Amino acid sequence: MKILLLAGDGIGPEIMAEAERVLAALDLPVTLDRALVGGAAYEATGHPLPPETLAKAKAADAILFGAVGDPRFDAVERHLRPEQAILGLRSELGLFANLRPAKLFPGLEDSSALRPEVAAAIDLLIVRELNGDVYFGEKGLRTTANGEREGYDVMSYSESEVRRIAHVAFRAAQGRQGRLCSVDKANVLETSQLWRDVVIEVAKDYPGVELSHMYVDNAAMQLVRNPGQFDVVVTGNLFGDILSDQASMCVGSIGLLASASLGEGTKGLYEPIHGSAPDIAGQGVANPLAMILSLAMLLRHSGGDEASAARIEAAVARVLADGCRGADLGGTMGTAALGDAVVAALRN
Amino acid sequence: MKILLLAGDGIGPEIMAEAERVLAALDLPVTLDRALVGGAAYEATGHPLPPETLAKAKAADAILFGAVGDPRFDAVERHLRPEQAILGLRSELGLFANLRPAKLFPGLEDSSALRPEVAAAIDLLIVRELNGDVYFGEKGLRTTANGEREGYDVMSYSESEVRRIAHVAFRAAQGRQGRLCSVDKANVLETSQLWRDVVIEVAKDYPGVELSHMYVDNAAMQLVRNPGQFDVVVTGNLFGDILSDQASMCVGSIGLLASASLGEGTKGLYEPIHGSAPDIAGQGVANPLAMILSLAMLLRHSGGDEASAARIEAAVARVLADGCRGADLGGTMGTAALGDAVVAALRN
Ligand SMILES: CC(C)[C@H](C(=O)O)[C@@H](O)C(=O)O
Ligand SMILES: CC(C)[C@H](C(=O)O)[C@@H](O)C(=O)O
Repeated sequence: MKILLLAGDGIGPEIMAEAERVLAALDLPVTLDRALVGGAAYEATGHPLPPETLAKAKAADAILFGAVGDPRFDAVERHLRPEQAILGLRSELGLFANLRPAKLFPGLEDSSALRPEVAAAIDLLIVRELNGDVYFGEKGLRTTANGEREGYDVMSYSESEVRRIAHVAFRAAQGRQGRLCSVDKANVLETSQLWRDVVIEVAKDYPGVELSHMYVDNAAMQLVRNPGQFDVVVTGNLFGDILSDQASMCVGSIGLLASASLGEGTKGLYEPIHGSAPDIAGQGVANPLAMILSLAMLLRHSGGDEASAARIEAAVARVLADGCRGADLGGTMGTAALGDAVVAALRN
Repeated sequence: MKILLLAGDGIGPEIMAEAERVLAALDLPVTLDRALVGGAAYEATGHPLPPETLAKAKAADAILFGAVGDPRFDAVERHLRPEQAILGLRSELGLFANLRPAKLFPGLEDSSALRPEVAAAIDLLIVRELNGDVYFGEKGLRTTANGEREGYDVMSYSESEVRRIAHVAFRAAQGRQGRLCSVDKANVLETSQLWRDVVIEVAKDYPGVELSHMYVDNAAMQLVRNPGQFDVVVTGNLFGDILSDQASMCVGSIGLLASASLGEGTKGLYEPIHGSAPDIAGQGVANPLAMILSLAMLLRHSGGDEASAARIEAAVARVLADGCRGADLGGTMGTAALGDAVVAALRN
């Protein structure tokens, strides 16, 4: 398996280094390659997703991605900002299905902002569409009839876009508790109405899955009130962005949540759901666990190596159960110390 | 003062009845009028916002609004659904500023899904723009080049739309702790980029207010992690819809949160932020407190009667401190019993 490592900006390189140590400790037959991405690539080449990086990504079997983004580039034109690198990879590689599992690790009951009994019940999977919605529609600045500036972005979904993500979500629900909640804003948005209609059509192929629908405002509320009610949640790109970050905090720290971005085949891009955290970059205090758990997802989905994925996940769970905590969880362990602990747990 | 009562659908009429009793107990010189709205109006007249209702709303000094929406009308064409009534009132009356305060009532520390110490720190005001965004842009179903159905909705904000809501938010922050957080998704959306640029321009008029910016995904996370960090939050229509519902659960129940929708003058529409809850309608179990607190906001903003507003709020706080709880807060008191308790507290 050819894995491309894209560390990116901010804390990306620090947490990537720990994932690499974990990978090395597993001693698997993989080939590693590296490339520049995000602000780092923009500084070196003038583009956040240089052609060499995209070519390597296309050639790889799987991509392990750190994070991109840096306020130093806020004034740069939109199409050259660091974030365009991850948006470009998702669309160029056709990675339309973003899987974001959220589950409370034993030992972290008191780390969530939620009451322990509410947090303990969390075990959900958010399936976020990643190639459409208001992210990729026509957008720009235009002038209104009375001469004002107006920013605009077109939100849209076509039938086939909804259908393929719905199939991913229904199949995921089949492999879990068999419950799928589709989140939209069909009482206001035509995009959501089509979304809902198509999800209902696709449901006919999955009689064993119980389908429900929820408006996004209600879903944001229910994710606080009683997140344990959800099994699989499927939603569009924008709502998925918001709800999955929100869910992350319910499990204690955004530094614990991994994600997989998949297309039609086994190729995928794997990244923590947190960002580049420029405020703490370079200090060796970032939590590498979401990055390490992203590696586990990579080995499972793109490598077909369930055993190694489960080993990594068990090692991370052990480390947390043993009380290892970084600053994000109120502890004092740094990035490397947490990486050490995972490697040690793997060896036991 | 001429107040128009629009009870609407679902639990609307039940909770409106309790607000009316509270208003009667205050014995204020107001004129009351009533009209049909939402699904109830659609059934009677064929339109969710009949011309008579709109005319009465235009003539009134303030509107007390229950809730609209009923799944029985899900198959009706969008422009005739119950929700169009509230959207129509907001836009026809130019009510562009929606104020949604969220604060934990003493005694409810253990009712929030958040840990008590996290919940106790909540005291924030969400200022949501209400006349623009993807709610009111061009929308519809179209056919793609390859013959598929595609739903679309155009998101947009013009300079003047952002400027007027920004002024409302900065002024609100001046009257509170002097901190304003503007929430957007400027790393992806052009609409958000213009929003951010204009908010920064307006900030020059308010040197005493500390302005920060947050991406909406991060804001959804921070509202769970540490909601006490926020004073005033200003955001667009869609993000405001999601974040304010989310914030409501942090304070224990969506049945406690009131809102004011204001334009340039003193006229306003006041409504609970919860919906019509068709699942519990007609059972006499809905929590009327958000509706009663909406009446308090009406008396304050449109009536200029701070004393009566404060009396109502103190009565509600007393009732909650005394342990009165409806089903939404794990108690057994029904709608009328809670209304009785507020009226009794007002008389003391
Ligand atoms: C960096 C940004 C463009 C991205 C997104 O909004 O998709 C991030 O928030 C994420 O969720 O992966
Ligand atoms: C009923 C619906 C159209 C409305 C909205 O989305 O604005 C509601 O959720 C609200 O927040 O007042």
